[in-house]
Amino acid sequence: MSEDYRSMWAELGLDLDAHDALLGVLGKAYEDIFLAQKKRPEGMAYFDFVMSEVHGLRIKELLDEKAAGRKIIGTYCVFVPEEIALAANATMVGLCAGADFAIDAVEQLLPRNTCSLIKSTFGFKLGKVCPYLEASDMIVGENTCDGKKKAYEVLDGLVSNLYVMDIPQMKSAAGRDLMKTEYYKFKAAMEALTGVGIDTARLKAGIAAVNAKRKAMHRLAALRQANPAPISGLDALLANQVYFYDNPARFTDSVNKICDELEQRIAQKSGVAAAGVPRILISGCPMAVPNWKLPAIVESSGAVIVGEESCVGERGTRNLVDDSGDTVDALMEAIVDRYFQVDCAIFTPNPDRLNHIESMARDYRADGVIHYGLQFCQPYLMESIPVEKALEEKDIPCLRIETDYSMEDAGQLKTRVEAFIEQLR
Amino acid sequence: MSEDYRSMWAELGLDLDAHDALLGVLGKAYEDIFLAQKKRPEGMAYFDFVMSEVHGLRIKELLDEKAAGRKIIGTYCVFVPEEIALAANATMVGLCAGADFAIDAVEQLLPRNTCSLIKSTFGFKLGKVCPYLEASDMIVGENTCDGKKKAYEVLDGLVSNLYVMDIPQMKSAAGRDLMKTEYYKFKAAMEALTGVGIDTARLKAGIAAVNAKRKAMHRLAALRQANPAPISGLDALLANQVYFYDNPARFTDSVNKICDELEQRIAQKSGVAAAGVPRILISGCPMAVPNWKLPAIVESSGAVIVGEESCVGERGTRNLVDDSGDTVDALMEAIVDRYFQVDCAIFTPNPDRLNHIESMARDYRADGVIHYGLQFCQPYLMESIPVEKALEEKDIPCLRIETDYSMEDAGQLKTRVEAFIEQLR
Repeated sequence: MSEDYRSMWAELGLDLDAHDALLGVLGKAYEDIFLAQKKRPEGMAYFDFVMSEVHGLRIKELLDEKAAGRKIIGTYCVFVPEEIALAANATMVGLCAGADFAIDAVEQLLPRNTCSLIKSTFGFKLGKVCPYLEASDMIVGENTCDGKKKAYEVLDGLVSNLYVMDIPQMKSAAGRDLMKTEYYKFKAAMEALTGVGIDTARLKAGIAAVNAKRKAMHRLAALRQANPAPISGLDALLANQVYFYDNPARFTDSVNKICDELEQRIAQKSGVAAAGVPRILISGCPMAVPNWKLPAIVESSGAVIVGEESCVGERGTRNLVDDSGDTVDALMEAIVDRYFQVDCAIFTPNPDRLNHIESMARDYRADGVIHYGLQFCQPYLMESIPVEKALEEKDIPCLRIETDYSMEDAGQLKTRVEAFIEQLR
Repeated sequence: MSEDYRSMWAELGLDLDAHDALLGVLGKAYEDIFLAQKKRPEGMAYFDFVMSEVHGLRIKELLDEKAAGRKIIGTYCVFVPEEIALAANATMVGLCAGADFAIDAVEQLLPRNTCSLIKSTFGFKLGKVCPYLEASDMIVGENTCDGKKKAYEVLDGLVSNLYVMDIPQMKSAAGRDLMKTEYYKFKAAMEALTGVGIDTARLKAGIAAVNAKRKAMHRLAALRQANPAPISGLDALLANQVYFYDNPARFTDSVNKICDELEQRIAQKSGVAAAGVPRILISGCPMAVPNWKLPAIVESSGAVIVGEESCVGERGTRNLVDDSGDTVDALMEAIVDRYFQVDCAIFTPNPDRLNHIESMARDYRADGVIHYGLQFCQPYLMESIPVEKALEEKDIPCLRIETDYSMEDAGQLKTRVEAFIEQLR
C-alpha cells in the first residue's frame, strides 16, 4: 500500500499496526480462497481489484466525496433504504464485518453469547481497523434482532453519530404504519444531514440507481440456473458483498459485464464445475466480508453453490421499487412496499422466507440446501428447524450448520459438508 | 392428591406419571426451601396452601368457572392486560414455567441455545404436565424477545388456540400507536371469545380488581424497606409468583393480611433476619414457579432479599391504571399508558429500567444488587453489563449472574454469592 493510504488511515484514526495485520490476513485469505479458483470469469478481475483496494482506493473515493460536501452513511442492514440516502446526495456503505477482532475488548461490553456478526462490528470499532466506519458521517442502526437492537445502545457510547431506525416485527397494518413513519423520519434525517431537500426527481433518480444495481444482481442470479453453473458461489457471493461498498453505477456496470461473459459461457455449455456436480443453495444468516468460511468449505468439497437465500444475496436484492409514482409521497409508499416484503427472520410469522427458499431451490435446480446459522442468532436458528422439516417433507435434503467466525470447527464442518454432498450425488 | 384430581388431570390430557414426578419434585423443593425457613409470617400459610393445591384445587376452580361459561386465558408475559380479560368475564392465568422438563423433546423443536424459560414452557406442553395450559381456552403469546416471538411460531403447531399480540420495540409515538392497536385487537378477541361486550362499567371493574392486586403488592414492597426485613425474599417472591395464578380478589385479601402482620412486626422491630444482615436487590429476568434457585442460594448464604426488579416483582406490578375515565376509549388509553411504562429490556433505549434499579436499591436500602440473567436471554444479558457499570459508578456493588434452570452450577453460584455477600458486610 502506498504511503498516501497510510496517512489517510492515520487521519481516520485507525490503529495502523492492527490494520496492517488485518489487511495481511484478508489478503492471504483472498488469495487462498478466491484467486486459487479455476475458470473464473474474466470480469471478476474488477472485483479482485476492488478487494485489493477495499480499504485503499474506495476509502480515498469516499473521502474525496466528503471533501466535495457529500455525506457518507454507514449501515448494518438491508432495511436501510439506500434510495433515500442517494436522493439526499449521500453515499451509503455497509459496515457489517465478517472477522473476529479485538474479542477481549468486545467481551468487556457485550455478552459472550452474542453472535459473531455483532461482536465483529464492535471489534472493528474497538480495534480501530474499519475505515468505512470512521469515514461515516452518520451510522444507522436498526431494531431488527434483539442482539443488534440492544448492542446499538452500547455502540452509542462508542460513536457520536449513531441514528437508530425502528423496524416492525409483524407484517400487519400497524407494522407497516410504523415502518412508513420511520422511513419518513429517516428521510428527514438525511435531508437535515445533507441540507438537500428530497424532491420527486431526486427520489426517482435514487430509486433508479438502486433498482439498476438490483436488476444486475437478478440477471446474475438467473444465469446461475444454468447447468453447468457458469460462476462459482464464492464469486457470486463476492459480488453480493461488494454490492454494499462500491459506487452503485460502477458496480452495476461491472456485474452486467460479468453477466455478458456468463451468457457466452452458457451458450458454450461451459461452466466452473462439471454438469453433474451437486448444486447447493445456501440459506440463512448474512455473510459479510471476509466471512467466506462455509462457501469455501462447500466449494472445496466437490459442490457448487448456485444461490444465497441471505441478506447478502437474494433476500437483500430481490424485488424492485415501483418507480411509477409522480410525487415524493407516492415514491415513498413504493419504497415502503418494497422493503416491507423483505422476509427477514425478525418478522413473525415469516412464511414468505420458506416459500422463497423452496422456489430458489427449484429455480436454481439445487440438489440440497445448507442452512447457515450464526451461533446465538436466535431468529435464524429458531427458523432453521422448521425450515429443515419443511424442506425434507418436499424431498429437498437439508443440512443445518451452526457456527461462528472462528476456524476451530472448520475440520468438523468440512466432514459434515462432505458427507452431505456425498449423499446428493 | 385425591382421586378426583387424578381424573381431572387425566381429562385434561396430562401424563399422570410424569405429572406425579413433577409434583413430587415440586413438593420436595417447596418443603426444603420454603417450609424450612424460620420466622415466617403466619399469613404465608395461605400461600403454602395455594402451592400445595396449585395443580389441584385451583385447577378445579378454573374448571368450575369454565363449566359456568367463563373462559380461561393463559399468558406468558406482563404485557397482556388482565383488566381487559376480566372485563370480558374471563380469568387470566400465567403459563411461564420454572423447571426443566422433557428437554430432549424440546430440543427437537427449539435450538439448544434457547433460554430455560422458553424451553420449560415447551417442556411442560410436550411433557403434558401443565394443567393451566391444558385448561386454557386461549393462549396469548406476545412479540417481546426474539426467543419468545419465534418460539410462538413453533408453539402454534402444538396448540390450537394460540393468539399472538404484537408489542413495540421503542417508546415512540408510532410504538404507542402499535400497542394501542394491539390492545384494541385483544379487546375484540376477548369479546369474540366470551361473547361479552366490554362496556365502561365492566372495564372499570376489571381495572379496579387488578389495581387492588397491585396496591397490595405495593404495600408489601414498601414494608420490606424496614430494617430488619419483616419477610424473606423467598416468601415475597412466592407472593409475586402466585399473583399470576390466584383468584385476584382472594389474592389481594391474602397479601393485605400478611401486610397487617408485617406492620406489627415492624412496630416490634422484629424481622426474619437480624438488622445487620446484608440486604440484596435482585434485578433481571423473571423467576416463574418453581424457579427458586438463586433466591434460595442468596438467603441461605446469610443475606436477605428486599426487592425484585423483575416481571415477577416490581417491574410487573408497579404503576396503576388511571381509572378516572368515563368511556371505554378513555379507559383503554389509560390501560395503554400504564403498560407502555413497563421497562422491559425488549425496549430500546430503556433508561427507565436503570433508574428503577437505582431507586429500588435506595428505597429498599439494599447493600448490593444481584443481576439475574437467564443464559441466552439477549435483552437482559445485553443490559447487564451497562447496569453493572452504572451501579458501580454510584458505589452500589453488583454481581452479575448468568445461569439456567439446571442445578449443575449451584455450588459454583453459592461460592460466588457468598463471596459477594461477604464483601457487603
